[in-house]
Amino acid sequence: MTNQNRQSDRNAGGKRNSKKRYVTYRKASKKKSLRPPVAKESVNIAFLGGMNEIGKNMTLYEYGNDMFIVDCGLAFPNSDLPGVDLVIPDFSYVENNADKIKGLIVTHGHEDHIGGLAYLLKKVNIPIYATKLTIGLIKGKLEEHGLLNKVKLVEIKARDNITLGSFNIELIHVNHSIPDAVGLAIRCPAGVIIQTGDFKIDTTPVDGDMIDLQRFAEYAKRGVLALLSDSTNAERPGYSASEKSVGESFEMLFRKAKNKRIVVATFASNIHRVQQIVDVAQSRGRKVAVIGRSLENLVSVGTELGYLNIPEGLLIDINLIKNYPDDKLVIITTGSQGEPMSALTKMSIGEHRKVSVTPNDYVIISATPIPGNEKMVGNVVNELMKRGVDVIYEKMYEVHVSGHACQEELKLMMGLIKPKFFIPVHGEQKHLQKHALLAQSMGINTENIYIGNIGEKIQITSDEIKKIDNIPSGEVYVDGIGVGDVGNIVLNDRKHLSKDGIIIVVATIDSSSGYVISGPDIVSRGFVYVRENEALMNSARDLACRVIDECYDKKYHDWNTVKTHLRDELSKLMYEKTKRSPMILPILMEI
Amino acid sequence: MTNQNRQSDRNAGGKRNSKKRYVTYRKASKKKSLRPPVAKESVNIAFLGGMNEIGKNMTLYEYGNDMFIVDCGLAFPNSDLPGVDLVIPDFSYVENNADKIKGLIVTHGHEDHIGGLAYLLKKVNIPIYATKLTIGLIKGKLEEHGLLNKVKLVEIKARDNITLGSFNIELIHVNHSIPDAVGLAIRCPAGVIIQTGDFKIDTTPVDGDMIDLQRFAEYAKRGVLALLSDSTNAERPGYSASEKSVGESFEMLFRKAKNKRIVVATFASNIHRVQQIVDVAQSRGRKVAVIGRSLENLVSVGTELGYLNIPEGLLIDINLIKNYPDDKLVIITTGSQGEPMSALTKMSIGEHRKVSVTPNDYVIISATPIPGNEKMVGNVVNELMKRGVDVIYEKMYEVHVSGHACQEELKLMMGLIKPKFFIPVHGEQKHLQKHALLAQSMGINTENIYIGNIGEKIQITSDEIKKIDNIPSGEVYVDGIGVGDVGNIVLNDRKHLSKDGIIIVVATIDSSSGYVISGPDIVSRGFVYVRENEALMNSARDLACRVIDECYDKKYHDWNTVKTHLRDELSKLMYEKTKRSPMILPILMEI
Repeated sequence: MTNQNRQSDRNAGGKRNSKKRYVTYRKASKKKSLRPPVAKESVNIAFLGGMNEIGKNMTLYEYGNDMFIVDCGLAFPNSDLPGVDLVIPDFSYVENNADKIKGLIVTHGHEDHIGGLAYLLKKVNIPIYATKLTIGLIKGKLEEHGLLNKVKLVEIKARDNITLGSFNIELIHVNHSIPDAVGLAIRCPAGVIIQTGDFKIDTTPVDGDMIDLQRFAEYAKRGVLALLSDSTNAERPGYSASEKSVGESFEMLFRKAKNKRIVVATFASNIHRVQQIVDVAQSRGRKVAVIGRSLENLVSVGTELGYLNIPEGLLIDINLIKNYPDDKLVIITTGSQGEPMSALTKMSIGEHRKVSVTPNDYVIISATPIPGNEKMVGNVVNELMKRGVDVIYEKMYEVHVSGHACQEELKLMMGLIKPKFFIPVHGEQKHLQKHALLAQSMGINTENIYIGNIGEKIQITSDEIKKIDNIPSGEVYVDGIGVGDVGNIVLNDRKHLSKDGIIIVVATIDSSSGYVISGPDIVSRGFVYVRENEALMNSARDLACRVIDECYDKKYHDWNTVKTHLRDELSKLMYEKTKRSPMILPILMEI
Repeated sequence: MTNQNRQSDRNAGGKRNSKKRYVTYRKASKKKSLRPPVAKESVNIAFLGGMNEIGKNMTLYEYGNDMFIVDCGLAFPNSDLPGVDLVIPDFSYVENNADKIKGLIVTHGHEDHIGGLAYLLKKVNIPIYATKLTIGLIKGKLEEHGLLNKVKLVEIKARDNITLGSFNIELIHVNHSIPDAVGLAIRCPAGVIIQTGDFKIDTTPVDGDMIDLQRFAEYAKRGVLALLSDSTNAERPGYSASEKSVGESFEMLFRKAKNKRIVVATFASNIHRVQQIVDVAQSRGRKVAVIGRSLENLVSVGTELGYLNIPEGLLIDINLIKNYPDDKLVIITTGSQGEPMSALTKMSIGEHRKVSVTPNDYVIISATPIPGNEKMVGNVVNELMKRGVDVIYEKMYEVHVSGHACQEELKLMMGLIKPKFFIPVHGEQKHLQKHALLAQSMGINTENIYIGNIGEKIQITSDEIKKIDNIPSGEVYVDGIGVGDVGNIVLNDRKHLSKDGIIIVVATIDSSSGYVISGPDIVSRGFVYVRENEALMNSARDLACRVIDECYDKKYHDWNTVKTHLRDELSKLMYEKTKRSPMILPILMEI
């Protein structure tokens, strides 16, 4: 193919092609000057989900009357959202456009990309496209929600193409901390958009299947309008280490562990990590037991679908570990983030029903704390050490590698794709901005870089990228089986309650006379030890009596006014006496 | 001095001397064989305070009938302790031994070393010894608590000696992130103990006053029984950078900021950091304004006592910043840890009354997040960036150095002192264990290293180090003006309330007939939006009616039984319908 041909192959997004297109356009307008100028082809992208991280949990593409969605994940709440179990995206925009949506493609099987699906599919039934392992993991989710037979799941593989309305999408294999992850090449008349998905470049992946850079390059050759790229590690210089290096660390550490029992904590979804632990365990004649529901699930799905290769007889039931000496055992467990209810945390405080750790245990925490979890992980390490356990954690040895591309990999992807427009996604603001700076350093103009926000719809033509709309979006809280019934009022009440507790003033009042017949009684929870503060409770009761009497004297017959007075006066008293502000809840019963 | 002489100078703790002493002892016992062997001289150390970190907040030394205390600090609670403002040590052991306690020495003016003093001094009046700046900061604390004129404060300086009963203590100057910090050489008949206090080795400190290694060496020469050394950075290899390097970064960054307004967030107690900001501001013709009560206090105390040198006219009131162009201003602020109520956090979300940040602001966060604060600091960075602010944070440039010694400095101290016994202190378990490994690598025997726990009293003789007692110790929670009136029951209630809220069932009952006269009413807070869950609330009410009626039919006249039934039945209903477990609080009013 000559250089000339290659250029004509490029579509509207090709950067070096822009001059050529411009000439064509001028010629056309000269020829048919009476015709109004043809509107530029455009494609829209809406960022629907992701707590604080755009393009993470859910992204929507729109061309004309066709839409499709990429991923539908959840986020785990921090301590700002007490009692909330999960956070999922607001689906109202999807619901309002249900007739336009042709399908949903899932890039890989991590919770932040599949965890919202069941909630979405209860509202809108759309076909789901994903690779084999991802489909396997999605099936588990849908089964839990009783949706398995109600939804169309389409298994596809890398290099397959899907047509969704005017869109044609090819899946491109990428490396990540879970197998079978893909990036997307999204084609529509406006041009080609590449969304990397979560990725890294692993030249020696455990399964031998390196990221399909060739395929990315082929799209690049034809010209890419826009690149949406993973920003998670945009702050980290250099390259991410290969997953294989963790296997080498395991070999070394398993030797160092000598006759001790080995316990490895890792992320429940990292099949390659589990495979490497299994491999080293086998080579050293140790049996493997697994603890934690999500890990057990991964092992069963991974084995069934052929992603995990465990030799017959190697895996033993956790209840049988007592039949084996310590030096013949490896226990793989959840809890690498120090989660309070996890198996490792329970072991560290001696509360696990099946595993008691002793100085004859050698614990490897094969993970890095996710920001916000550092303290919890540190506490687990401390507690284990107090029990005399050897603990290998964080940066002591290379026992964990990230699944996300670092700066040099990000630059390589950018330099390979050479997009006209660049949109850093999947990261907090600081990561996006750092990624934008990397793009600038690679020669992409500032005006061609767009840092989006959740809830924005942006439009891309061959000429520009801009925001065109704000759409309903954001966080919906899942608490128990309630979806969205916990909002700011409830959360603020919970925070208030957790800070200083609650004081309830209750009285029964004769509605005709206004006399107090019973009470007022003062009940408190989460405030102070009542026994030590009887005097305070007595003065609260006296004050409540006085307030009600005064209201009666002033002939306030509106109960809300009486309640407001009670609340104000008791708040004042409590703050004066304790410098605290418990929630005051007056309840007046009429008879 | 000959080598012989030098050896005889060593006291019982000297390691190379042990053989000699052994010989002497045998001779003595041969000579007077009828006399019972003389008991070894011993000194005891009790670890009284520090949340999870021994020897941090409070340590007690005991020889015979004499005791003295080192430091009395507080800890800031994590999210595990909702509503708790501060955590101070349990003082009951001190109270029980008040007559033996000769004094309290404070090593430096940080909150985790002085913050508990006011609470202690309300219970036990003992003289306080500290250096000038530390005394200045303590005075502020005592004034807040109305204790200033009731307590004996003794200002001493490095190389001064204090006699407290049988103890003689010399203060030795060390480098730290606050000036006027000291380590201690504690002499008693059992030997010399060195407690480093928080320290680093800064060869180019901002005030030119390097750690007094000579003095440490002199004690080492005479033999040191035990070393208690700061373990905070025992996991960090190499040397800590000099505080001066931060000043160089400021110079570079102030140039890079060009015409923008500069905002620097830092720890409120780091006088040398503030001095360096002031110096660079002056050299670049910028005025300095300070925000945050603790910073304002530091500036006033530091200036008054001569630790902070601010040229006349450089400091301006924060209310006057509008009179100066952006490029003539530096604002120093608190909030470097992303604390929710801090000035920087408020600026980041546009809620600060006096400072609004814009793209013409250049924010430098001159601090590293303390473990547990990473997420909060990250959020502040993200929010500032969303407002277009340039933010310099964490490891982008050297804008912060630690005040604690790293591995090479720790080894240097250990190699200099050559103690017989080593006790790593001031760190979590993982830091203490790492520090112990460093000591082993320096040739200290494992049995001569003791990793303690809070609440232990240990005994050191020339022969051994061992635990001899458990003493009352631990954490006392301060909430508002209440000290210790919030305990586990209250905290568990708060956690329960914050997870799923509270449902109150209230009914007025005729005590003679048992009939319900009014109610039952259902009131909830922090549970769900009631409007959207009217059906649920109605079924709760119906259930409560039924339960009370049944109790009446079964002639339960014991209200507690009725309440228990209400609680059980409503809990079951709520869990069934919502998979949540709100606190259920039945209140029955009798008339």
